[in-house]
Amino acid sequence: MLLEAIYHHPKRNWAFGYDDETIFLRLRTKKNDVTTVYALAVDKYDWDRTRQLISMSKFATDDRFDYYECVVKPTHRRLKYGFLLEDGEERIWMNEDDFTTQEPQNADKLFQYPFLNPIDILMPPAWVKDAVFYQIFPERFANGNPSISPKGAEAWGGTPQKDNFFGGDLQGILDHLDHLSELGINAIYMTPVFKATTNHKYDTEDYMEVDPHFGDKETLKKLVKTCHDRGIRVLLDAVFNHSGRTFKPFVDVLEKGEASPYRDWFHVHSFPLEVNDGTPTYDTFGLEPMMPKLNTEHPEVKKYLLNVAKHWIEEIGIDGWRLDVSDEVDHAFWREFRTTVKQANPEAYILGEMWNESSEWLQGDQFDATMNYPFTYAVNDFFVKKVTDAQSFAFAIGRQLARYPLQAAEVAFNLLDSHDTPRLLTLCGGDKRLMRLAALFQFTYMGAPCIFYGDEIGLDGDADPGCRQCMEWDTDKQDHELFHFYRKLIALRKAHPVLRDQGSITFLEAQPESASLAYERRSDEEVLLVLFNRSDEDHTFELSISEQEWEVAFGESQWSVGPKGLHAELPPYGYAVLKATPVRSVNSAKEVDDKTQSKA
Amino acid sequence: MLLEAIYHHPKRNWAFGYDDETIFLRLRTKKNDVTTVYALAVDKYDWDRTRQLISMSKFATDDRFDYYECVVKPTHRRLKYGFLLEDGEERIWMNEDDFTTQEPQNADKLFQYPFLNPIDILMPPAWVKDAVFYQIFPERFANGNPSISPKGAEAWGGTPQKDNFFGGDLQGILDHLDHLSELGINAIYMTPVFKATTNHKYDTEDYMEVDPHFGDKETLKKLVKTCHDRGIRVLLDAVFNHSGRTFKPFVDVLEKGEASPYRDWFHVHSFPLEVNDGTPTYDTFGLEPMMPKLNTEHPEVKKYLLNVAKHWIEEIGIDGWRLDVSDEVDHAFWREFRTTVKQANPEAYILGEMWNESSEWLQGDQFDATMNYPFTYAVNDFFVKKVTDAQSFAFAIGRQLARYPLQAAEVAFNLLDSHDTPRLLTLCGGDKRLMRLAALFQFTYMGAPCIFYGDEIGLDGDADPGCRQCMEWDTDKQDHELFHFYRKLIALRKAHPVLRDQGSITFLEAQPESASLAYERRSDEEVLLVLFNRSDEDHTFELSISEQEWEVAFGESQWSVGPKGLHAELPPYGYAVLKATPVRSVNSAKEVDDKTQSKA
Repeated sequence: MLLEAIYHHPKRNWAFGYDDETIFLRLRTKKNDVTTVYALAVDKYDWDRTRQLISMSKFATDDRFDYYECVVKPTHRRLKYGFLLEDGEERIWMNEDDFTTQEPQNADKLFQYPFLNPIDILMPPAWVKDAVFYQIFPERFANGNPSISPKGAEAWGGTPQKDNFFGGDLQGILDHLDHLSELGINAIYMTPVFKATTNHKYDTEDYMEVDPHFGDKETLKKLVKTCHDRGIRVLLDAVFNHSGRTFKPFVDVLEKGEASPYRDWFHVHSFPLEVNDGTPTYDTFGLEPMMPKLNTEHPEVKKYLLNVAKHWIEEIGIDGWRLDVSDEVDHAFWREFRTTVKQANPEAYILGEMWNESSEWLQGDQFDATMNYPFTYAVNDFFVKKVTDAQSFAFAIGRQLARYPLQAAEVAFNLLDSHDTPRLLTLCGGDKRLMRLAALFQFTYMGAPCIFYGDEIGLDGDADPGCRQCMEWDTDKQDHELFHFYRKLIALRKAHPVLRDQGSITFLEAQPESASLAYERRSDEEVLLVLFNRSDEDHTFELSISEQEWEVAFGESQWSVGPKGLHAELPPYGYAVLKATPVRSVNSAKEVDDKTQSKA
Repeated sequence: MLLEAIYHHPKRNWAFGYDDETIFLRLRTKKNDVTTVYALAVDKYDWDRTRQLISMSKFATDDRFDYYECVVKPTHRRLKYGFLLEDGEERIWMNEDDFTTQEPQNADKLFQYPFLNPIDILMPPAWVKDAVFYQIFPERFANGNPSISPKGAEAWGGTPQKDNFFGGDLQGILDHLDHLSELGINAIYMTPVFKATTNHKYDTEDYMEVDPHFGDKETLKKLVKTCHDRGIRVLLDAVFNHSGRTFKPFVDVLEKGEASPYRDWFHVHSFPLEVNDGTPTYDTFGLEPMMPKLNTEHPEVKKYLLNVAKHWIEEIGIDGWRLDVSDEVDHAFWREFRTTVKQANPEAYILGEMWNESSEWLQGDQFDATMNYPFTYAVNDFFVKKVTDAQSFAFAIGRQLARYPLQAAEVAFNLLDSHDTPRLLTLCGGDKRLMRLAALFQFTYMGAPCIFYGDEIGLDGDADPGCRQCMEWDTDKQDHELFHFYRKLIALRKAHPVLRDQGSITFLEAQPESASLAYERRSDEEVLLVLFNRSDEDHTFELSISEQEWEVAFGESQWSVGPKGLHAELPPYGYAVLKATPVRSVNSAKEVDDKTQSKA
């Protein structure tokens, strides 16, 4: 047994509360190195009556490690625990500090999860599991009110540049809600709508005003109300890391320098504010002088921004905030932000923009979820760029599943593109067969999928500014087949709770140097089998699976069931989702086998 | 290279801010598996100008792993980073998700420490590094005012029982401050002094009143003031996990049941409050019905307790709080507690009672330090119980050094016994030779040492109630030699900043099956060599060390310097501290070797 590979840490993604009576324990081992793993769980004050050995099951795997998991419901909400690992030869107990062959006789050296306090548990709003998001970049979605378009706005459908305008606005979104309802999405994320000078509005001038080229408060209020009436939630974009150059407090500092009462609202290293050799004398987003970093530790700045966060929830009724450049803002600010936002709306979704590992923000005190770019990379590498094989893809997904508490994975914001990346279709080199495969994975995986406006009707475009082109409203130019595909995909997700909530994921086929992939999503109520053939040759699956009675839920496939399991065939770039009723109760990680007694 | 053993995690003890310009990076490898480790550090928006390779040095080791560390001062306070590992054959780059032989050409896949926000950095009060604590259990320290002693208080010096009283009080402490000043301590931690029914006062009846058998507010104020005048800081005990049975809100719930307005101040599972089969119908400390767990998530409870925390700082001027059963209280409460306390006194020390791994509480948002019982165990196992050898001891210490951010280790509360354990002398089987060795380690290691009242004059006693015996004030019965030893030990620590601040620790001799130990504490200004012989035979040290000129700082030893280094001899149970001026600048982990350029 390779002890150097075995990893556990008390708390975090290795020991986390899931609800007010449930704790998940996880353990990492070297891949294929152990045969069975148990958790020894006990209340330290009640050893004899509470001691139990709980069988752990492998819930994820990557290129190097296996990840085991079990659930504990401690008698008195307190938990001391250790692990027992077996590999057929050795039988090793793992304590907080060491490994031993001696079974622990008391709780002294065990790990602990001291007390299950509900307030410390990450409990994201339940609606997000069922959400299908649609991201709108308002300046490019629809021009519903030409009278407020910026001077010099170009004709709709022109070439997007870094700094040009086309007059998209909130009325335009209102005008096209039928399109969204027909598609079936139930949540919108809008990039910033507050007063700013650029087309993207990430350089806020006034956090309390709707940009006059987008509309006014009344229009925004009407938009949110109309969306709610249609069962659509609305997320706005909180750009709190930095302001724009025209933000009044910054203008004041620019003008008055050290004499400005706002001098400490920013991080000024030296006056006057200037740029030397490409580096501003004050902290900025990137090295962009137009975007001065806000001092979110300053009490007045904090008060101002937290009021902004509360205001738009209370005044307009938004359902949450997407947080721009959230990784560079201090954790202390986000903790107060969470308290403020959840007080204003306990069901608000707090979504951080993150491009890296994000566990520090997903422990219950800060965000509910992050924009899951690591997911984006994994999907693009396998389905789109074809630079990884099925096994590598499954390992990348396994690594991610092991990285966060389960409830964070369940509400992750799973996107394949955005205003900050090339569009999916362009990444696919225009090959919609690849696009469909990628989207099918997105919609059958754990977490809330998001469609970037226009992807569903075939918009393409390279990185900014290309990806921010005007929405195509000429129905002759829209790809209706693709729209239909997305519509069915959304319907599939809505029809099957196992795709959204409490469905485990197990890869059944993910071989090295292979472009075919099969996995199941399984709950006590249903099992869905998802098959992909990302190659240009026919592929035959032979899957060992207990269920006998299958039917097609999505896509097309020829299949038969024999003694060896399920035999299924897919044409090049084919895909299918088959469904069945589980023949056996799922031995999911959420079940406690609390009858298993110590074998020692 | 064993890749399965290599570990890093963005943030936590693996990537932490130390001050507003400094980030520590750490990496774990299999023991003796690599030859050199570098960190690749860069600003993601300024790759060309900021990219650097920084040499990492081994700062700790345990039975299975080596731990490497370096310091980065990022140009724009943003950091993306990876690692380069070499073992003489392989040359491996480590990214956030994988290992590769290809040198990264951009920051995309690197780890990140997004921005160095000062508010997120653990910055404990500076005075704690210089503190030597003395723990007082007031009921048993001195009876300075017999008129307020409890009825039935027994004669001073009687046998301590779980429930008897001897009349110790605050005036008693005031009367004996000369003893403490003579000893040389500069901080006192008092177990609870608020109104309660028991002798230990951990069952609070009124958090706003001094226990009448201990004195009154004026006496406490006078005590703190007098201590401050003598340069002694004072820590009180905050028992916020649970109250006592006679706490008015609990009495109200006992009386009125569900009708009580205080019903939600506690965690009541069912009314009436009772104990069934040993288990109370409400959450308690342990299974102790007398100590109902407080609902620290309840706004009124929070407000009440936070006011208590603030009150005693503002009214009496205490220098911090020791937090009883701190692990079982919710993290959210401790975050608000930290904000409240630091607002009242930015220099207040927040010390959690923890018996397990505590990193979750030591990230800057909760505690400054924890009672370092893992340290206690390690020292007792080697020096006192003699169940581990020198190598195991060094590994236990190495494991702990790697576990927390440096600044947490620098202010750890290092105790060898307390009111919750047998006394050190009793653990030593009465052998004061062992006691001296353990104490010498305690006082020459990183972190603030604490002496449990009376240890310094030879008090013994087994676990509670034995360890809580009355302080011996009869000078004929005090061990003056031991007192003198402790006094010199404190003076040693005070005389040598390297023992308190910024001194690295390196074990020079710590062999398997050996009872002799040598380590150095080193800074740019001085080097101290600490030698122990915990065996009953003479021991000779041959230590490879550059310095030639040594003198004795503490203890006794014969030594000479030859071509092979330092030759030193210790008698059985002997110890010595030698001092020298470093012949070379220390290559400490705090220096950035930012001239090292990529060799690729």
